[in-house]
Amino acid sequence: MHICEFQEMMKRLYFHRDNRRGMRSTYEWLTDEVQELGEALTSNSKEELEAEFADVIAWLASLANVAGIDLEKATLKKYANKCPKCLRSPCQCTF
Amino acid sequence: MHICEFQEMMKRLYFHRDNRRGMRSTYEWLTDEVQELGEALTSNSKEELEAEFADVIAWLASLANVAGIDLEKATLKKYANKCPKCLRSPCQCTF
Repeated sequence: MHICEFQEMMKRLYFHRDNRRGMRSTYEWLTDEVQELGEALTSNSKEELEAEFADVIAWLASLANVAGIDLEKATLKKYANKCPKCLRSPCQCTF
Repeated sequence: MHICEFQEMMKRLYFHRDNRRGMRSTYEWLTDEVQELGEALTSNSKEELEAEFADVIAWLASLANVAGIDLEKATLKKYANKCPKCLRSPCQCTF
């Protein structure tokens, strides 16, 4: 599924709630999910880990919807087959 | 671009670094980027905001690569045209 299709799906499912909740509270949900992902990294359950990755990208798409950002367009503007810092593929940054 | 194609692109660009850095440090980069996204939400620059959204999904894909998780598969397993909690579209959860 394209990133933009996933963002549209999240809009159909959740925008009525996301928009009412607002940008700051939606961001707080995202940070909670990132924390849960961090905890799941130490678990032995691949299923739990998959679910937490899913939640983070879902809340990121929800936040992009509330902020009026096209996540796929924004992503490919910065990461288009090369590192945005060294402009090479693979990245050869030295830091 | 498909979510899986983006994850593959991140692998080509960064896996040699991500894998050496390891899961915990890659997760820490993700949390730093989420914090920067939070700061960018209050800025007036759409360009800056787009770049921060791009960074978060990029680091999420990098982390998925290190963790051996297929981000698209994991996402569609949980969010397939319906809310995973109430099983409806749009979501009708009451909490």
